Amino acid sequence: MDLATIIGLVLGIALILGSISIGGSLLPFVNIPSMMIVLGGSFAALLINSPMSQVIGLFSVLKNCFVAKLPETNAVIQQFTDLARSARRDGLLSLENEMETINDPFLKRGLEMVIGGNSRDELTSVLETEIICIEQRHENGRKILEAIAAAAPAFGMIGTLIGLVQMLRTLEDPSQIGVGMATALLTTLYGAVIANLFCIPLAGKLETRSKDEALVRELMMSGLSSLVDGLAPRVVQERMAAFVSESKRPVTPTQAA
Amino acid sequence: MDLATIIGLVLGIALILGSISIGGSLLPFVNIPSMMIVLGGSFAALLINSPMSQVIGLFSVLKNCFVAKLPETNAVIQQFTDLARSARRDGLLSLENEMETINDPFLKRGLEMVIGGNSRDELTSVLETEIICIEQRHENGRKILEAIAAAAPAFGMIGTLIGLVQMLRTLEDPSQIGVGMATALLTTLYGAVIANLFCIPLAGKLETRSKDEALVRELMMSGLSSLVDGLAPRVVQERMAAFVSESKRPVTPTQAA
Amino acid sequence: MDLATIIGLVLGIALILGSISIGGSLLPFVNIPSMMIVLGGSFAALLINSPMSQVIGLFSVLKNCFVAKLPETNAVIQQFTDLARSARRDGLLSLENEMETINDPFLKRGLEMVIGGNSRDELTSVLETEIICIEQRHENGRKILEAIAAAAPAFGMIGTLIGLVQMLRTLEDPSQIGVGMATALLTTLYGAVIANLFCIPLAGKLETRSKDEALVRELMMSGLSSLVDGLAPRVVQERMAAFVSESKRPVTPTQAA
Amino acid sequence: MDLATIIGLVLGIALILGSISIGGSLLPFVNIPSMMIVLGGSFAALLINSPMSQVIGLFSVLKNCFVAKLPETNAVIQQFTDLARSARRDGLLSLENEMETINDPFLKRGLEMVIGGNSRDELTSVLETEIICIEQRHENGRKILEAIAAAAPAFGMIGTLIGLVQMLRTLEDPSQIGVGMATALLTTLYGAVIANLFCIPLAGKLETRSKDEALVRELMMSGLSSLVDGLAPRVVQERMAAFVSESKRPVTPTQAA
Amino acid sequence: MDLATIIGLVLGIALILGSISIGGSLLPFVNIPSMMIVLGGSFAALLINSPMSQVIGLFSVLKNCFVAKLPETNAVIQQFTDLARSARRDGLLSLENEMETINDPFLKRGLEMVIGGNSRDELTSVLETEIICIEQRHENGRKILEAIAAAAPAFGMIGTLIGLVQMLRTLEDPSQIGVGMATALLTTLYGAVIANLFCIPLAGKLETRSKDEALVRELMMSGLSSLVDGLAPRVVQERMAAFVSESKRPVTPTQAA
Repeated sequence: MDLATIIGLVLGIALILGSISIGGSLLPFVNIPSMMIVLGGSFAALLINSPMSQVIGLFSVLKNCFVAKLPETNAVIQQFTDLARSARRDGLLSLENEMETINDPFLKRGLEMVIGGNSRDELTSVLETEIICIEQRHENGRKILEAIAAAAPAFGMIGTLIGLVQMLRTLEDPSQIGVGMATALLTTLYGAVIANLFCIPLAGKLETRSKDEALVRELMMSGLSSLVDGLAPRVVQERMAAFVSESKRPVTPTQAA
Repeated sequence: MDLATIIGLVLGIALILGSISIGGSLLPFVNIPSMMIVLGGSFAALLINSPMSQVIGLFSVLKNCFVAKLPETNAVIQQFTDLARSARRDGLLSLENEMETINDPFLKRGLEMVIGGNSRDELTSVLETEIICIEQRHENGRKILEAIAAAAPAFGMIGTLIGLVQMLRTLEDPSQIGVGMATALLTTLYGAVIANLFCIPLAGKLETRSKDEALVRELMMSGLSSLVDGLAPRVVQERMAAFVSESKRPVTPTQAA
Repeated sequence: MDLATIIGLVLGIALILGSISIGGSLLPFVNIPSMMIVLGGSFAALLINSPMSQVIGLFSVLKNCFVAKLPETNAVIQQFTDLARSARRDGLLSLENEMETINDPFLKRGLEMVIGGNSRDELTSVLETEIICIEQRHENGRKILEAIAAAAPAFGMIGTLIGLVQMLRTLEDPSQIGVGMATALLTTLYGAVIANLFCIPLAGKLETRSKDEALVRELMMSGLSSLVDGLAPRVVQERMAAFVSESKRPVTPTQAA
Repeated sequence: MDLATIIGLVLGIALILGSISIGGSLLPFVNIPSMMIVLGGSFAALLINSPMSQVIGLFSVLKNCFVAKLPETNAVIQQFTDLARSARRDGLLSLENEMETINDPFLKRGLEMVIGGNSRDELTSVLETEIICIEQRHENGRKILEAIAAAAPAFGMIGTLIGLVQMLRTLEDPSQIGVGMATALLTTLYGAVIANLFCIPLAGKLETRSKDEALVRELMMSGLSSLVDGLAPRVVQERMAAFVSESKRPVTPTQAA
Repeated sequence: MDLATIIGLVLGIALILGSISIGGSLLPFVNIPSMMIVLGGSFAALLINSPMSQVIGLFSVLKNCFVAKLPETNAVIQQFTDLARSARRDGLLSLENEMETINDPFLKRGLEMVIGGNSRDELTSVLETEIICIEQRHENGRKILEAIAAAAPAFGMIGTLIGLVQMLRTLEDPSQIGVGMATALLTTLYGAVIANLFCIPLAGKLETRSKDEALVRELMMSGLSSLVDGLAPRVVQERMAAFVSESKRPVTPTQAA
């Protein structure tokens, strides 16, 4: 669970609702037609803008903003050090026994290829394509969020313009001016909240997640290559540690010297 | 047919018209002079901005946002695997018989060159120029859409400023203030809708399409080169599969191993 | 003549004047002090921003937006094929006779160097510097147009702020509020028209022209090098055709094969 | 201490408070709910946008804007010239005695590796990773400041829109219009001050600091490598001087010649 | 003297003052507290943003926008042709006599190195660092101008918001509304003038100057290297001419051929 995302969303929504409640009732801020033009309009623009498959894929990508299912880099290094030890002692085929304990599909697939006797080049080529695909999915998700972040305020403005034109044509009833203008402004408010509380921050987190996942996948790829090369556990550990920033690395004898 | 584009456009227009209807009549939102200044002004700016040939070419490029005539990558790979099998069995000239079943002009042209005995370099050079031309056309189309997306709101603002100046000079008749201002705002509304519902999303789709088409064309070029090289069907399939992301690839014995 | 530029400018100006006329008299929209602050202010900013020589050079560059004096690529290829034939038959010096028929100064200069017996490297070095200078001039022109496109709306806003401050200080005479505000908005209107109808689109056309001219000049340079190398007419044609996109190339026997 | 940062902050705050005081009381400008929506909303967006660890790390990075703890480049060059002299005279191990006088943890660590007999490659690899980590931390800090600089005005606008809608719905009491609108504008004011007085300038200083620190660290790394190579003091000085711009270099005999 | 900069500044200021005078008195446009918040606020932001040394360095860099002290490229080429002739005839040491006639410190320093017998590499390395330092100073100056160009309108808006809030809280005295709002708008006006008449155009000129100076310095460096190499005057001239665009080059026999 990525608590920061959830706390941020809850806090942001609570602050906006709270800020409205302090000044009066929440009711005047709920306007279904206004919501429809902002949400619906942004969705319509999104359908025109992006291929259907990417729009549908957005939701599975968004999960990454809430669920932190990535293994820790140090755990991955440890895991590969252990795998290298087993492989050294009992041969690559003995890794078959470890397969059951591995849930990560990327790692599972890579290990299957290692056990299946694939060459280092075959392994690297398949896994690299896989990593590029993961990054592409994240990139698509971010682009869609950014498209909504641009469309929502625009449709908010369109809604406000429609409301203003209607209000201005009925100026003869001055008691309705305020209410008309208030309603007209609601779409701008909705657009601003959608863009600034949801889309822009979520796109930012998706970018961080994408970088983190790419790092872990490359770390795993480096470990799997080391297994194919039959390296000693200590060498595997050192090679993989090069991917991790100094302060997060496990202490090794060499560096403590 | 690209349903998403059509659904998006219909949905967006329906939402805007519906949102207007809820608040009153559609009639005050139709103003021919206002439309003329926004549409005509954007068109005038476009004529100054871009060469006539590109403006005319826009419409044929826009078709790509609505019609999805690209063959599936897996179908293309299958097709080339079959062609390679025929070529192996009966020689390159036998491919002449397949020509009738091929509608895609790019593929047709390439196959003609293969059968005509052109070298790999000749083939690649001609087809690469062709791919660059296709991308150039899409790029030009996108640039024009982006130019309109920038010009329309600007001319919307110009129209609103003209309307405001006229309204402000006749303040003595207060009953007309609202109507004058409402009319003045219409051009801003038109400009915002043109940019945000039409031009920006269509430019986005054009970009995706352009990338997709470039991929398919490069896939075909790789297949045609393989035919010239006289590769075995299985090798052709493997080589072409490298262009396609893992999850979309057809299952091959190697990868299932 | 570049008709599109002229039609665009006439259409844009006509639409704006027409749109004003529909709503009343043109007279209130003509305000000399307002024009002075927008035009003069933008010009002042331009003088500070760019070296005097570039500001003066702008006008000769702007001509390129209106006059299409570039030769067609196919005509250039044909011309060089003919020149290569003459040179083959009667020697390079015989090209002296063709000099009179050539108006393009770039081509004339290059041909003089070819006849004068300069080496390929000398020729290329001189002409490349020339091409870079042409591109630099266009680039400078575009930058100046973009600087005006940014300055004009800014000085429009400055003028409007000055007018608003003056109007707000004399609120006691309510009959003048509207007129004062209308006049204040004129500078914003002027700035928007200067930027969006003139500077931004002209800068766009200048960019296209610059690319087109660079292509033709490089085509000529390739042709002149071929003359120095004493290539056969057919080879000259093929070499030069590589610069032109497939669909615009003249049909040659090779490609029809 | 970075006096400029502190003077700038004090001056900016004093000017804003002074400017308010001249026009009346400070009290109407303090509004807790308005502060909550701008500060809280920006913080919520930040939590969604960035990983928790980076948000927490911001404060330690911000210190760099206030405290100038970097050693002078010339002092560093002098220090290494002295160290090289000691090492030449008494061997690398004698540097152990100098360790106590060194406070900088980066330099301390590097020197420990030099004394410990690490090779030049080991040294460089460890220190380069360290430098990249420092830059990454600064970069993260800057990104967070820029995210707040974008979020604060947005939540300022959201707060103003909420206030406007509430004010417009209670137009019947005209005496409250002004106060309502004044309060609504406060959030926009808070957002503008947070972005333009705090976040944007601090992000700018962080960037300068980051460049300066990277330069000093690279200078130290060059000096440490020279120690490992056992270079003469004069050569160490010359090599390190290459990192420093001419005007800041210490005068050396060669250059005075 | 760079007349364009001075004419532009005088013209711009005259137009703004003139435009104010036409509409009434200049007096209401002078407001010390408003000036303080815009100028002082921008200065405060600048202090936080940039290191003190760069802020102080700005003034010496700004001089370059007003004073055109760069020698003409053709004069530099002529000068080096003469120097090369002297050096050929009387040896490098004879150049000592020419030193008195040279004022440019960069050239003086380079010539001293040439006479002092430095190698080409030593010369190039020292002068290149010098050129990079000059460019760095200009770049810093431009960045500071751009930072003010961004800060001034922001503090203008902050000032206007403060004024608006104060004005809105005293709506009960309607006679003061206009004056209050007029005063509030002054800070926006100041910010717009500072950014658009001063900072943005001066930053533009600084960029042009920086490019021009870099070119002249590289030209000088090429000439100095030629002196070290002991080249013939004619060769020196040709080599240096390569730095200058065709149309500005002095006519040489080769090119007239």
